[in-house]
This record gives sequence, C-alpha cells and structure tokens, in this order.
Amino acid sequence: MAEFVTVCEVGPRDGLQIAKAIMPTDIKQRWIAALAATGLSQIEVGSFVPPRLIPQMADTDAIVRQAVTLPRVGHGLEIVALAPNLRGAMAAYEAGAQRISIPISVSEGHSRSNTNRSTDDQIAEVGRMIAWLRAQPRHVFVDAACSTAFGCSFDGVIPVANVVRVAVDLAQAGADCVILADTVGYGNPIDIKAKVRAVRAEIGPVLNGLHLHDTCGLGIANALAGLEEGIRKFDSALAGLGGCPFAPGASGNIVTEDLVFLLESSGFSTGIDLDKLIAARAVLHEGLPSEPMYGNLARAGVPKTFAKAA
Amino acid sequence: MAEFVTVCEVGPRDGLQIAKAIMPTDIKQRWIAALAATGLSQIEVGSFVPPRLIPQMADTDAIVRQAVTLPRVGHGLEIVALAPNLRGAMAAYEAGAQRISIPISVSEGHSRSNTNRSTDDQIAEVGRMIAWLRAQPRHVFVDAACSTAFGCSFDGVIPVANVVRVAVDLAQAGADCVILADTVGYGNPIDIKAKVRAVRAEIGPVLNGLHLHDTCGLGIANALAGLEEGIRKFDSALAGLGGCPFAPGASGNIVTEDLVFLLESSGFSTGIDLDKLIAARAVLHEGLPSEPMYGNLARAGVPKTFAKAA
Repeated sequence: MAEFVTVCEVGPRDGLQIAKAIMPTDIKQRWIAALAATGLSQIEVGSFVPPRLIPQMADTDAIVRQAVTLPRVGHGLEIVALAPNLRGAMAAYEAGAQRISIPISVSEGHSRSNTNRSTDDQIAEVGRMIAWLRAQPRHVFVDAACSTAFGCSFDGVIPVANVVRVAVDLAQAGADCVILADTVGYGNPIDIKAKVRAVRAEIGPVLNGLHLHDTCGLGIANALAGLEEGIRKFDSALAGLGGCPFAPGASGNIVTEDLVFLLESSGFSTGIDLDKLIAARAVLHEGLPSEPMYGNLARAGVPKTFAKAA
Repeated sequence: MAEFVTVCEVGPRDGLQIAKAIMPTDIKQRWIAALAATGLSQIEVGSFVPPRLIPQMADTDAIVRQAVTLPRVGHGLEIVALAPNLRGAMAAYEAGAQRISIPISVSEGHSRSNTNRSTDDQIAEVGRMIAWLRAQPRHVFVDAACSTAFGCSFDGVIPVANVVRVAVDLAQAGADCVILADTVGYGNPIDIKAKVRAVRAEIGPVLNGLHLHDTCGLGIANALAGLEEGIRKFDSALAGLGGCPFAPGASGNIVTEDLVFLLESSGFSTGIDLDKLIAARAVLHEGLPSEPMYGNLARAGVPKTFAKAA
C-alpha cells in the first residue's frame, strides 16, 4: 500500500488573486467541481480578505458554501479558505470551511507590506483566531504558513533561526499543521532541507506542509527535497496559475499536474486521477482565457510508462 | 572551495536537430561563441550524421573547426561532437573535436528506429570507433550515452538490468565516461537513483553523466536526484531548446539556466556566469525566432538572494 501524500490545490485562491481578469463565479464553481472530481483531498477555494484589496476573491463566501456540498471522491475532500485575521476566520467558519489557512510572514518587510503589521502582531492574531475557532462547536483544522521562509523580495535571505522561531510560535498557538511557504519562489533544495530539518527538530510532525512557487524553475525539485525530508503535504496550482506581484514575469505556484506525476511516479499515492486533472485545465482556460497555462506533463501527455501508485 | 559540476550545453546539437527552421551558420557560430563566453566547460556543437537525415547539422564540420578556436574561459572549454558511427567519429576527429559523444539505445525499438541496427550491433560499432580513435596521435575523450535508459516511447519501461548491461559493455569498450540518457523524458527521481546506483555498482565513477529532458516537468528534480547520487556532469540546453520527435508537444532538454541555478544555489561550482547565460538567449532567438524558449529563471531574473558558489 503506497504512502499517501496530500495535495492541496490552491489555484482558486493563490492562482486567481494575481490574475489580471476576474473569473466569473459560475465558471469558478464549475472549475472547483472539476478539481474535486479528480480526487484532490484539499482545495483552497478562496480568501476572506476585503474585496477592495483582492476583487478576485469577492465571491469567496458563496464559493465556500457551494464547495462544501460537492461530492467526495476517494480519500475525501476538505475545503480550505484563507483568513488573514480574526474577522476572516469568523467568516470562513460561518461559510463552512473545513480548514482555514493563515499566512504569517517570517520577514518583517513582507509582513508590513502585506498586512501593515509586524510578524509578532500577526502571530498574536493567530492566537486569537485559534482561540475563537476552538470555542466553536464545529472543529476546523488550522494550517499556519510561514510565508517568505525561503527568501523575500524585500528582506532577501531569511535565516533558519527566524523560520524556526515563527514556526514554534505558530505550533504553540495551536495550529494543526505548520507549513513552510516559498512565497516568492527563491528556494533551493539545500535551503528547503535545512529549514525542514531545523523546524522538525522543534515541532516534529506538526510541520507537514510545503507551499512552493516555480519562479526560478526549481519548484518540483524543491518538492522532491521536501518529500525526501518527510513532508507529506504540498500546495500547488493547476497549470501553475499565479505569479508574484513582487517578481514581474515570475511563474506561479508549482504545477499540480507535474507535482502529482512526481508523487505518483515516486511510489506515493495521491488519490488523484491525472487524466481528469489535465482535463480540468479546459475549465480554467474557459474562465481565464488570457492567462498563460504552464506545465510540461499536460503538453506532452501522460507517458505510456506511467504506473499509478496503488 | 565548492565542488565542480560539469554542464555540457547540448542546445546546438540536441536542441537544433528538432527545430523546424535551420539556424544560419553565422548565427550559430555567434551563439556558440556567446555560450563559450559564459564559462561553460563543454558545448556539444553538432552531429556528424548524413545531412539528408538531419539538415540542421549539415554545417557541423565548419562549426567544430571554428568552435575549437574559441577562447577558453574559467575551467576551460571542450568542444563536443556527436558521432553515430565510425565514419562520424573519423570526421569529428579530423575537424578537431575534443570529445565525441556516442548514443547507444538500450531499447531495441529505439535502436532499430534510430539507426536500423540492434543495440548489440551499436555496441560493436562503439568498439570499432574507440579502437580507431585510440590509434590516432591526438587523445579524444569518448562519452558513451545509454539512450532511453529511463523509458522508451516504443518499448515502454526499460529494466534496470538492461541499462546495466549496456553501460558495462560501453565501459569495457573503453568509453571515458558513460552517460545515462532520458531521451524521451519519461524518467522520475526514483528510477534515476535506482539506475545510477545499479550502474555505479558495476562501473564505478566511469558513470558520471546524465542527459535529461523535461517532457513531464520532472527534469530539474531528476537532476537533483542524480546530483544526490554523486553525478557530476549534466547535459542541458539553453532555453530548454529541443523536443522529442516521438512525443508531440514535449519539452526539450532541461533548461541550462535553471540547471545552473540549481547547481550553484546548491553549493556546487559550474564556472558559469548566469547573467551571461541568460543574455545568450537573445542570440538563440535571433537565429530561430519562431522556436519557443523555455526556462523560468530567465523570465523572473536571478533573485537577489542568489549566492554564486565560490
């Protein structure tokens, strides 16, 4: 029996928020339904941020409410929503989100630019969010992400000790899962391995996720590095949708299709049907016809030697 | 002092032979000069095959003769030419090539389709080529590549034992360096590691090269897998030029810019100036304006956190 690896599809959140056009809600719903039908076990469908900041996320409440009614395939499906603060966490809970992801910038420069708060203020807010969520009748999983863990377009190199400190604080705040995020895509395999090991030494298996971008072409290699260090949950976006507002021309999240191919051909199980995943690109393209779609596997097709993990 | 890794730029050979247009000889010469100026230590500049089979390689004799006169930067520069048979090896030697690369298909289907010969006939020809070369006054290095080592579009999965058998035969024939080639780009990190280990167990450090394609998006991850197994020489092509005649839409060789970024940011030295490498794309584009150029690093630019290996 192959070991299971969770793939969290973040295209409808991280992918869309950089897109120039706004995907119509009905197509977004069909796209999320197509993603769910592939067997994905987590889909981050939106972000509870003020619509004036990210208009692409204005329909997140409706999107979450509809997504949680989708039929579950294979290992089941958790609907994830991003919440940047307590107000967002309350809205996500009310809409029925099953997981809430919270990004906290390890770099002060990114934290202040993104949220107008220091890293410590953000960590304190996470504490309030988790306290509120734990007082509600329904359990919601909390994924806390250490953003810019592998480099920052403002602050440059991010020391290991800073990442460890934020990760420990988030674990102590009660996060179910701590994620290390290569927000701008500057990471490399050596840095990935070093930081995963250092954080694991402090918080153990609470660290279980990597959020990677393919800015410099190392995204899938960085996933392999994480996999070799025992990481069993990865964020990715169909067709590598997205980008980075601070790196013009940068590619987006790592490509879900290529990631699943890496995992399945490395002997892990993802529960995902690769052919259905590739087919879901058509719905994405329908909703955002001018957005470039990345990914080598989809161009070439699944090779005849591919053996899906059992 | 960082450990050195050899990057062999194969764009002018493997990249061009699939291109629809033919790059004019004078632009090809300027492109190779621009590549040499980046500090690359090996450039495969052409192939001594009949021009009626691959018209893009018709000027290989002139290209080799000019390339060997280029100034050496950093670690020095070896000019490589591909030779499929004894006639080609003689021509490569006469033109002044410093290394000769010889591809031998592990899969019978690919061997017969590509050369109309069996794998054993090809191995026997390699023996004749090396015997002739060793009888000449000037020493020429021989790189023998086990093509389709990680899968074949005709024969499908290629067993480890078959790869080992061909690699051992090539080492016994006197090859200086044996290379495992993922000719169609079906490889994955597990398969790369397993076959590198198995071949190394038989021929030791004579196995020192990987030739990888990025057909399924795993190219750079496969390079990382090889690096972790001790491989210290990789083929790649600027802008990921190339493709595979048997996989429509497939990407080409792994992207040199992204590979160098992987190696340098992993603490290895390549002798290559990344900015000059990215600048060399302009000459390639001038010579083949309709050919797509791949590579994430060139789109995003070298990140400010990048520290070149000493």
